[in-house]
Amino acid sequence: MKDPFIPVILGTARPGRRSQVVAHHVFDTIRRRGLVSELVDVADYHMNGTGRESTTTSLRHFGEVIDAADGLVLVAPEYNHGYPGELKMLLDSQYEAYARKPVGFVSVSAGLLGGARMVEQLRLVAVALRMVPVSPAVHVSKVGDALNETGSFSSPSLQAVLDDMVDEVERFARALTPARIPVA
Amino acid sequence: MKDPFIPVILGTARPGRRSQVVAHHVFDTIRRRGLVSELVDVADYHMNGTGRESTTTSLRHFGEVIDAADGLVLVAPEYNHGYPGELKMLLDSQYEAYARKPVGFVSVSAGLLGGARMVEQLRLVAVALRMVPVSPAVHVSKVGDALNETGSFSSPSLQAVLDDMVDEVERFARALTPARIPVA
Amino acid sequence: MKDPFIPVILGTARPGRRSQVVAHHVFDTIRRRGLVSELVDVADYHMNGTGRESTTTSLRHFGEVIDAADGLVLVAPEYNHGYPGELKMLLDSQYEAYARKPVGFVSVSAGLLGGARMVEQLRLVAVALRMVPVSPAVHVSKVGDALNETGSFSSPSLQAVLDDMVDEVERFARALTPARIPVA
Amino acid sequence: MKDPFIPVILGTARPGRRSQVVAHHVFDTIRRRGLVSELVDVADYHMNGTGRESTTTSLRHFGEVIDAADGLVLVAPEYNHGYPGELKMLLDSQYEAYARKPVGFVSVSAGLLGGARMVEQLRLVAVALRMVPVSPAVHVSKVGDALNETGSFSSPSLQAVLDDMVDEVERFARALTPARIPVA
Repeated sequence: MKDPFIPVILGTARPGRRSQVVAHHVFDTIRRRGLVSELVDVADYHMNGTGRESTTTSLRHFGEVIDAADGLVLVAPEYNHGYPGELKMLLDSQYEAYARKPVGFVSVSAGLLGGARMVEQLRLVAVALRMVPVSPAVHVSKVGDALNETGSFSSPSLQAVLDDMVDEVERFARALTPARIPVA
Repeated sequence: MKDPFIPVILGTARPGRRSQVVAHHVFDTIRRRGLVSELVDVADYHMNGTGRESTTTSLRHFGEVIDAADGLVLVAPEYNHGYPGELKMLLDSQYEAYARKPVGFVSVSAGLLGGARMVEQLRLVAVALRMVPVSPAVHVSKVGDALNETGSFSSPSLQAVLDDMVDEVERFARALTPARIPVA
Repeated sequence: MKDPFIPVILGTARPGRRSQVVAHHVFDTIRRRGLVSELVDVADYHMNGTGRESTTTSLRHFGEVIDAADGLVLVAPEYNHGYPGELKMLLDSQYEAYARKPVGFVSVSAGLLGGARMVEQLRLVAVALRMVPVSPAVHVSKVGDALNETGSFSSPSLQAVLDDMVDEVERFARALTPARIPVA
Repeated sequence: MKDPFIPVILGTARPGRRSQVVAHHVFDTIRRRGLVSELVDVADYHMNGTGRESTTTSLRHFGEVIDAADGLVLVAPEYNHGYPGELKMLLDSQYEAYARKPVGFVSVSAGLLGGARMVEQLRLVAVALRMVPVSPAVHVSKVGDALNETGSFSSPSLQAVLDDMVDEVERFARALTPARIPVA
């Protein structure tokens, strides 16, 4: 098979979001491994509610990205133990194209628990969308301290978890591609 | 204490939403019991992302409603096992004013499982916001068949669960009011 | 590859459990499709706490089943929105052997919501154990009415969901086998 | 009202459990505040499955503790993102007596995320049992380093969270006692 296409979705549009730098680092990590990627920013998609898109063109592009993807990585902060609403509206805009594609998670938190609770909620949404949530997850605690001045993770062990998660997404993407068609 | 103020939040802005009729019925049920209520429609709040309000005035009104509330009832459909994104953005716009106020849930589904999974995710968000999730919950399955032509529940047993849930919210609202101030 | 081995785990030891008949039907369904299976009954494993096995031999057999399995199906009732404790203790007794194997869920409930909340909690445990939760799930509501006198599902549509879930477990088992070794 | 009775439940029976020292410290903290408590150890209750008690007497005592309690604190480790099975079997052995009593959580982990995911699952079980989960929670990460030689928390900020959680349980216990009877 050709090299897997693993887009990264930045799942918050909040002004001042720290997750943006994290998403860029995840995107760079994926590309440095020789995989094809694209950084999708939820802030580019203006939705006033589920199914109420204000910019038809951009949702069409999102649909094309999901169609073409062999796997996904979601980067998002935890807000009140859950996921950002704008990320959920974006995910809910597509359906069939997610099926049997692996998804990895990077959660971002200003606190000590790394957004682990948000990942749990998102995993269940992913299963509902017929995606395959991978087990390794990247939990970025105290995000203000987690990145060095070049925008990379300061902690080698955190980078190792990210590498492991991307490995798993790639492994599943390669294994599941033949099983994807036809989707029942 | 004065009669509790228990606003109802309709948590989806999706075109064609069936939850709207359900929310009206919940609102009527609460008022018929002599409680004060108000129907808050998430579709009136245009947010392009968490913390990105396009209509300052309306969020101010939402904040005033939460400030004044003694308890809440959330009415929302389940989308892919989770909550609508627009509801989450609205809930995330406030914080302190939720503390120690009870919240009841009405989930709406076109399927057979009544949106039960969405309620579980919302309960955890509610706890993060320091609200008190009550145990009785109203799960509306096959919403197309659940309402009669006057917009009431066709099933007396479903109405009984709704009455029980509102009872519980009222009971907690009355019991917790003295404990609400000061919020730590 | 050889035909996948998909054992069924009956996850409750409660006296009078209705899930037992369901588990037998699931086991029959799997075998009728030409797959290899085995019915594992949690009641055969006496544990007085996590890691406290009273019957060494039987846990060794459970470990061998998980080692040999290409996928799993768990059948269990929902107790207070969660999973039976005995099932959790059994699952927690193994670790590496679960990795990258698909798992399907059949939840059993005397009520109307089919144990859907329990499945959500189990899916997260499954991901922690590096298993792959499949999206189709069988939710048996009102279990007293769900089975006919031969122990099969009365409802053709429920049987169709079961067939779909087993299909998906088989599909993932076949696709993931090459990706299983070596487990990181 | 008389001083609230807030028992502490140690929710793991695993040999070598680190949560035992944590539970003792929580128990001491509660008593030092002038509240009445009792340390309940799940290891004293031998159950071979839900509803299959091997020691009738001890479950009777557990039932009496729950009956008499004005609130609860649960101390347990996270196993594979979920709760220990023995804790779930113990909780499932009672029902009515939990209603409208607050419950606080202390999760214990050898890792960095403090068992936060387990607390989320337990909160949902608590709501099903009609308990009131309080928002402040104590997440003990790297438990090997979290306790000093006297068995207290090394970190003053962790102790502050514990104090805050116990405050909240007490506050709710006092506020909800009049609302407890009659339970619907």
